[in-house]
Amino acid sequence: MFKYSKAAAIALAVCFPLVSQSASAEEPIEPITVKPVEDAAMVELGKKLYFDPRLSKSGFISCNSCHNLSMGGTDNLKTSIGHNWQQGPINSPTVLNSSLNLAQFWDGRAMNLQEQAGGPIANPGEMASTHALALKVLQSIPEYVSEYKAVFNTDKIDIDGVTKAIAAFEETLVTPNSPFDKWLKGDKKALTAQELAGYELFKDSGCTACHNGAAAGGNTFEKMGVVEPYQTKNAAEGRAAVTKDEADRFYFKVPTLRNVELTYPYFHDGEAATLTDAVDVMGRIQLGRSFTDEENASIVAFLKSLTGEQPTFAMPILPPSNDSTPKPQPFD
Amino acid sequence: MFKYSKAAAIALAVCFPLVSQSASAEEPIEPITVKPVEDAAMVELGKKLYFDPRLSKSGFISCNSCHNLSMGGTDNLKTSIGHNWQQGPINSPTVLNSSLNLAQFWDGRAMNLQEQAGGPIANPGEMASTHALALKVLQSIPEYVSEYKAVFNTDKIDIDGVTKAIAAFEETLVTPNSPFDKWLKGDKKALTAQELAGYELFKDSGCTACHNGAAAGGNTFEKMGVVEPYQTKNAAEGRAAVTKDEADRFYFKVPTLRNVELTYPYFHDGEAATLTDAVDVMGRIQLGRSFTDEENASIVAFLKSLTGEQPTFAMPILPPSNDSTPKPQPFD
Repeated sequence: MFKYSKAAAIALAVCFPLVSQSASAEEPIEPITVKPVEDAAMVELGKKLYFDPRLSKSGFISCNSCHNLSMGGTDNLKTSIGHNWQQGPINSPTVLNSSLNLAQFWDGRAMNLQEQAGGPIANPGEMASTHALALKVLQSIPEYVSEYKAVFNTDKIDIDGVTKAIAAFEETLVTPNSPFDKWLKGDKKALTAQELAGYELFKDSGCTACHNGAAAGGNTFEKMGVVEPYQTKNAAEGRAAVTKDEADRFYFKVPTLRNVELTYPYFHDGEAATLTDAVDVMGRIQLGRSFTDEENASIVAFLKSLTGEQPTFAMPILPPSNDSTPKPQPFD
Repeated sequence: MFKYSKAAAIALAVCFPLVSQSASAEEPIEPITVKPVEDAAMVELGKKLYFDPRLSKSGFISCNSCHNLSMGGTDNLKTSIGHNWQQGPINSPTVLNSSLNLAQFWDGRAMNLQEQAGGPIANPGEMASTHALALKVLQSIPEYVSEYKAVFNTDKIDIDGVTKAIAAFEETLVTPNSPFDKWLKGDKKALTAQELAGYELFKDSGCTACHNGAAAGGNTFEKMGVVEPYQTKNAAEGRAAVTKDEADRFYFKVPTLRNVELTYPYFHDGEAATLTDAVDVMGRIQLGRSFTDEENASIVAFLKSLTGEQPTFAMPILPPSNDSTPKPQPFD
């Protein structure tokens, strides 16, 4: 019933060598691995920038506003709130494990996290600043200048360094040691019978054709509505907005299922309020399959076993503005 | 030139016994002391609630939005941004050391932190929820119910417990060991000559009549505009709004000067953008004194020596909503 898309077929082909080298050679989902931090000073700088609302015109919205690390790296809203309470066009994806994605944004228009990080700062519907203004703010703050210099060896803060530091912090936001990963690594008691049954059904139904790899997603663009069209009022065109190819209409980056228990509501339009809804819709429109209540519940139980250890760190203390720092303009 | 208000006279009388017992018996400002945490579980629960935007109607605004612990416990805006981007009526005071205040809010309408905490949740211009809705949200989340039970020994979450826990967390937000406090405690190298000159001028000019005690403020209500009327477009009436006594018009709670380097902009209307401005205006309208640039700079240098150690703690991870949790309503 499920048709592999071209992209999925390619992704699976690419994945096989990786999978075969892992401890769980026969499973389509691999454990999350934590990479050593390469440049701790850059990560610390990036963390401050991630939490700094002075990158927005209002002085009120930071990266963490919509990708809240207390809440699974999301805002748990259908679509986000931007400058002047503008309603965002699309659901904010989680920042957790986002370094594992093949590209960033639902339509993949940013190649990587660094490219993504510059977008919201200057988007009039989001943080509504400009790169020039954000840099002027940062350049006015001696502590940022000295931290930046320690990392990038220059006194002149530029957007390339700012986004590189934010991306370096974001790369640390991985969530290892979920119950499912413990199971993958050999702890057979880490999953309940229901969770395991859910995982088997998840595989047997074809879900892993798209939701595979360490992030259980993020590897391909796929059509939303393979078997049945997806009904939505949301205007997002998906990948076609980037490629300008009509064949890519409604192709979206497959979202990661890691921490999906925390990243509600679901889909690019945020219209699936619960995992039960999301599993039901996915079954019908992607696989042509109606799960029974029991089947749905077992898949949901499995999905909740993908909640990993959340990144924990001390809240950053931001260096203060001073007399020369451009003032926030929340109401202009 | 400076006239003591009745309230200030009483506060000073009350303060003297405390001052005489302290290490710095002759100084009007005392060091910040850190009290041992009485109930760590209550503080942890309160921390989660403080960071939880689900206490707001939108699901977007938490206590930390306007009292941001990365930014001196403030939002660094003239007046705050509330639900639907409403412009707040008054500058958000810092939460840091707020347990030392004689009362909460600029007009002192809340007796203590617990009473304060309930206000913004249900204020249509701030978090725009209701206590009933906020409690329904919390009650739907098993992790909150069990944490609450461990602290309050009941399954039924009520606003009294919620605000008590938030207040317990806020009571931990003190900032000891500023350079000035080190100096008070005997480290004579902790202040520069300029800072010390600023402090002497601060005392000699009469600033400590109001800005005294451990918080260097927060002990009395004083008139904004003693010598000259304060010109503002801000509609706040001050203490008169609470007492309904015309004699209390423009009496505001004296703000703490602790961490004042971080809590810009200044005054109840947020109209003083810099410490230089604030010192200049205070000198003129409260003391009838125009400080020279050099005097102003030395007082500012002293004020910056009041920046203490900021509270550092791991960002809380919030328990997720579930299918029964009332949904946020950001755009209704």
